[in-house]
Amino acid sequence: MPDAESASAGKLNVLSEDPLCAGVFLPNTDVPVSPIGGHFIRSHFPAPQIDSSSWSLPISGEVDNPIELSYADLLAMPSHEVTNIMECAGNSRSTMQPPAEGVQWDNGGLGAATWKGVPVKDVLEKAGLKSSATDVLFEGSDSGTEPHSGGPLNYAMSVPLEKLLNPDTILAYQINGETLPKNHGFPIRLLVPGWYGMASVKWLDKITVLDHPNGGFHEMDYRIYPAADDKNDTSIQRVTTLKVKSLIGSPSRGDILKPGPHKIKGVAWSGDGHITKVEISTDDCRSWHEAKLEEPNGNYTWQHFEYDWNAVSVGHSLLRCRATDSAGNVQPMLATWNFRGYQVNSIHSVPITVRRD
Amino acid sequence: MPDAESASAGKLNVLSEDPLCAGVFLPNTDVPVSPIGGHFIRSHFPAPQIDSSSWSLPISGEVDNPIELSYADLLAMPSHEVTNIMECAGNSRSTMQPPAEGVQWDNGGLGAATWKGVPVKDVLEKAGLKSSATDVLFEGSDSGTEPHSGGPLNYAMSVPLEKLLNPDTILAYQINGETLPKNHGFPIRLLVPGWYGMASVKWLDKITVLDHPNGGFHEMDYRIYPAADDKNDTSIQRVTTLKVKSLIGSPSRGDILKPGPHKIKGVAWSGDGHITKVEISTDDCRSWHEAKLEEPNGNYTWQHFEYDWNAVSVGHSLLRCRATDSAGNVQPMLATWNFRGYQVNSIHSVPITVRRD
Repeated sequence: MPDAESASAGKLNVLSEDPLCAGVFLPNTDVPVSPIGGHFIRSHFPAPQIDSSSWSLPISGEVDNPIELSYADLLAMPSHEVTNIMECAGNSRSTMQPPAEGVQWDNGGLGAATWKGVPVKDVLEKAGLKSSATDVLFEGSDSGTEPHSGGPLNYAMSVPLEKLLNPDTILAYQINGETLPKNHGFPIRLLVPGWYGMASVKWLDKITVLDHPNGGFHEMDYRIYPAADDKNDTSIQRVTTLKVKSLIGSPSRGDILKPGPHKIKGVAWSGDGHITKVEISTDDCRSWHEAKLEEPNGNYTWQHFEYDWNAVSVGHSLLRCRATDSAGNVQPMLATWNFRGYQVNSIHSVPITVRRD
Repeated sequence: MPDAESASAGKLNVLSEDPLCAGVFLPNTDVPVSPIGGHFIRSHFPAPQIDSSSWSLPISGEVDNPIELSYADLLAMPSHEVTNIMECAGNSRSTMQPPAEGVQWDNGGLGAATWKGVPVKDVLEKAGLKSSATDVLFEGSDSGTEPHSGGPLNYAMSVPLEKLLNPDTILAYQINGETLPKNHGFPIRLLVPGWYGMASVKWLDKITVLDHPNGGFHEMDYRIYPAADDKNDTSIQRVTTLKVKSLIGSPSRGDILKPGPHKIKGVAWSGDGHITKVEISTDDCRSWHEAKLEEPNGNYTWQHFEYDWNAVSVGHSLLRCRATDSAGNVQPMLATWNFRGYQVNSIHSVPITVRRD
């Protein structure tokens, strides 16, 4: 089933129809990777219909030999696979108070998948980087007008060269063994593992090597504007690396459980290393208990956790999970508020009730 | 216009149709009292259709002379007026994280009005209180089944005698000079000023004087169950007195303002005395500035405030207001989470942007 259809068939929670933004209802945390139809979709503009046989990708700018690669050229190059948790920069925005403008993602702007493509590094090497190269601009063929964009524009984002020289940053043409579906960026999208999804530009149209970060509307928008700032302050931090985060997949909010043993299950991830510890609290943070944690499966995807909880007394509880990554980052009780509602990684709390009847 | 109609005509934000629950979109904070059609409505069950000519109210229990009063009897008794801010116990529930089950009130479960009726005290004196009397049970004629109520029941709530001996606690038959509309409890409702709305039982059917608090489904439900508790713990606090709170009415969330002077306006109230101070922050709590505050208009209604803000630089801001009452209570940054999402009085924060164009 094409994924626009599975979204409308109710497998995804459609937050916006055009452009299509759809999240998973609750991330399916029982599987190693999300099925394609269970991976979130975030588009800024309507999905372009692209004919891969006439499509080609020019690479120019600070390079010695500008080139243009066809879809067939890319498929013929040595391929590389990356299993990656992709999270929308605005995921969990709806849990922030006060509300921030933007798509009101609950916790479903998320998906784990195995992507296949060509390392960006190999393509850049074909074109020959000049020593002046510092950043690379990726432009999508999707276009339209954003609120306050002051006119139509294409979706575009530049990424520092350092991140692109990592062979895991790829020009992807497959997800979970299948040709990239239209809503995931057919024919070719960028995949920047370990970063929030906004950098993984879909429907790639053009690559331009630069001697500076590009800036531009979307690159300025995906920033952590604090609760009081001056818009002219260019030192404001970009959204890049995934913050350490975890979610309880089961039980879910509002569940009524019988007293006795229950499994608390979920997933944890970080863009800054792997997860070293997940702790569970069932008593409003008075005590924390370490969960059993799956070994990391590569550098970029989620790790499952599981905790055996014995619900002894009847009453109300908040179940909470708190992850720590190998760089020592720990999830905060409450993520720092920011104007656009990005990188929210507050501790996930799930209210449940234990009752005999 | 009957208020069910004004609700459906879009003056109120209908959160539930049957039973009718409707809030104001933004509390109209410019007027001393809300127009009737701009006062929130919270019903637990469908509104009963009552014929006031055949209706009567029995008062029995721990009294010397059980009596039964007709609508005409009540209208003939000496009347008393009270101007009151009524707030739903679940108001601002939607601003709490994690979400609590229940009607997802934003900040609109609110209304200021002048109510007219007969002091409960006068009615109890007619029946003659026994020395054993400690609490009085008020039962509405509205009935139905609540989730987990284990069967049908009438809405009912007992109130301690001390609160009822205050002549401002009345059996109300008018709001803002008009006969009580059906959705506000026609022919007679209880009005418990200074308490959250759940105590102001609508469609009164029966009054029973008790020698103990009644308990019962709704009385047990309107309690501050903490994030971890034992449901059998009866020491858990009831929802009663309104917490100190304030709201910014203007500007509103998402507003784009030009640099220069702006008025920040709103209302503040408390069930525990009057408001002595409202402070405004426009710089993420780095500084707070005292607003001009209206004198209290009686003991139970909101006070308007106003602050002259000069928006000097372009950029983002959170506008915040923080009230202090005469008992020394100050609004918290974040209200204590509780399972049912009651008495949320976190500091109100309004994100706005200052821009030249």
